Amino acid sequence: MITSPLSPALTRLYQAWQTSNSILCCGLDPELEKLPAVIKSGKQPLLRFCKEIVDHTADLVCAFKLQIAFFSACGAEDEAVELIDYIRHKAPHVYIILDAKRGDIGNTAKMYAEEAFNRYKADAVTVNPYMGRDSIDPFTAYVDKGVIVLCRTSNVGSGEFQLTKSEQGEPLFMQVARHAAGPWNLNHNVLLVMGATYPSEIQAVRQAYPDVPFLIPGVGAQGGRLEDVIEVGKSKDGWGMLINASRSILYASSSANFGEAARQEAQLLNSQMNDLRLQR
Amino acid sequence: MITSPLSPALTRLYQAWQTSNSILCCGLDPELEKLPAVIKSGKQPLLRFCKEIVDHTADLVCAFKLQIAFFSACGAEDEAVELIDYIRHKAPHVYIILDAKRGDIGNTAKMYAEEAFNRYKADAVTVNPYMGRDSIDPFTAYVDKGVIVLCRTSNVGSGEFQLTKSEQGEPLFMQVARHAAGPWNLNHNVLLVMGATYPSEIQAVRQAYPDVPFLIPGVGAQGGRLEDVIEVGKSKDGWGMLINASRSILYASSSANFGEAARQEAQLLNSQMNDLRLQR
Repeated sequence: MITSPLSPALTRLYQAWQTSNSILCCGLDPELEKLPAVIKSGKQPLLRFCKEIVDHTADLVCAFKLQIAFFSACGAEDEAVELIDYIRHKAPHVYIILDAKRGDIGNTAKMYAEEAFNRYKADAVTVNPYMGRDSIDPFTAYVDKGVIVLCRTSNVGSGEFQLTKSEQGEPLFMQVARHAAGPWNLNHNVLLVMGATYPSEIQAVRQAYPDVPFLIPGVGAQGGRLEDVIEVGKSKDGWGMLINASRSILYASSSANFGEAARQEAQLLNSQMNDLRLQR
Repeated sequence: MITSPLSPALTRLYQAWQTSNSILCCGLDPELEKLPAVIKSGKQPLLRFCKEIVDHTADLVCAFKLQIAFFSACGAEDEAVELIDYIRHKAPHVYIILDAKRGDIGNTAKMYAEEAFNRYKADAVTVNPYMGRDSIDPFTAYVDKGVIVLCRTSNVGSGEFQLTKSEQGEPLFMQVARHAAGPWNLNHNVLLVMGATYPSEIQAVRQAYPDVPFLIPGVGAQGGRLEDVIEVGKSKDGWGMLINASRSILYASSSANFGEAARQEAQLLNSQMNDLRLQR
């Protein structure tokens, strides 16, 4: 249910949610050594693997999230470009996230925004808030694109700084949320990364910012549980979350049937997520 | 003067300083639209431009810092790889920094470390501390490489979070310095980014951590002044800093003589830096 006129960026995101009827985001983090032998032995293994994952899951997800590090480590950026083009044609409604965690001073941030939105043609990119607003503005300037700001990340060490309380008693991640969802968000195109491993923080940020969408990594291998996350993370209209799963889908099977195994896992996750999301 | 056995990473850095007799780091941030017409019109403009800068300045600098965003925005990563190879052969002692500001969870950070150290073969990479120690460890695990942690960055908005004081009265950048120079630094290969625009913070971190090397951006176009920075930033042995200049060198002239103009600017900066550095 969309109750008021949405920004261009949020319109795009709602289109992805509603057309797919899914809040599942499939993370494409293709680790060469984990790929099935049938894939590893041929040319362009990352691209071929991800295409098969896309073929088997595109109707079950609202988003694909490409972890660019896996492509950059081996000089396969062109495969990432081709993969995004492939997803776009296969499932035009699906939201495409470049997970790059960029952040730099103004004129450099402009280049990273060009990389994400013009070179890769992603719908959204993840960014790091440590350098402050002028490192984020060049991304939010793209009014039809999503800018996903790291807030409370899912990793074990994330509390080292993100939980530090200010003199006013406000933990850093809440300070980041306040800036990112407030003054940085003039174009209503900011989303926040909220790790599934810290549901009480998801709840705190949702209560403070009822409408800002969350990208939620950390379910499955990292230990986050859907039942802890969805009730506190959803927005009033029942959406508000892109819940990422990577390894559990990608590596559901290490044999030649990996695509079908990925589909089964995505189906399971999607129906679990929708059950929990639509509960009263 | 090296007074005690240094780590492999610091040995490499001292070799760069002492062989070049310079603390000048030349930032290679090639913005296509700013390049001289003679360069812009041909093939591989970024690579050709940077090679000519290297040809004219390699004997005057301790380091080159490649800003990877400028290459990534236009899909020119291969030119960055070739440029690093070119520098390595031209001036083997010069320290090569990949300015990429990476930071992600463990298995992804491993990929970024591979990108920096195996693909690009850089001597050091810049990283973002927001996600905590487990996002940095995969980089510091490379004992002969430098890991340059963002601490107090040079941009206008950097104070937004970096100056936030904790309940104990410690600003975030000091907390980052304490972690990065302390528990994260088991291999003695951590450096810190300290913006030239905030000399009092450079002084505070230098007093607390006498030996940790600083990468100092922000002189010139961003407003930092050498005379404010060097006295407070140098370590006891007179080194301790890589002071970056990008635009003032790269764009010293917009005509075909840009290489010679870059050389003159680098010469001027290098001699100013050494004068200030060697003052009592």
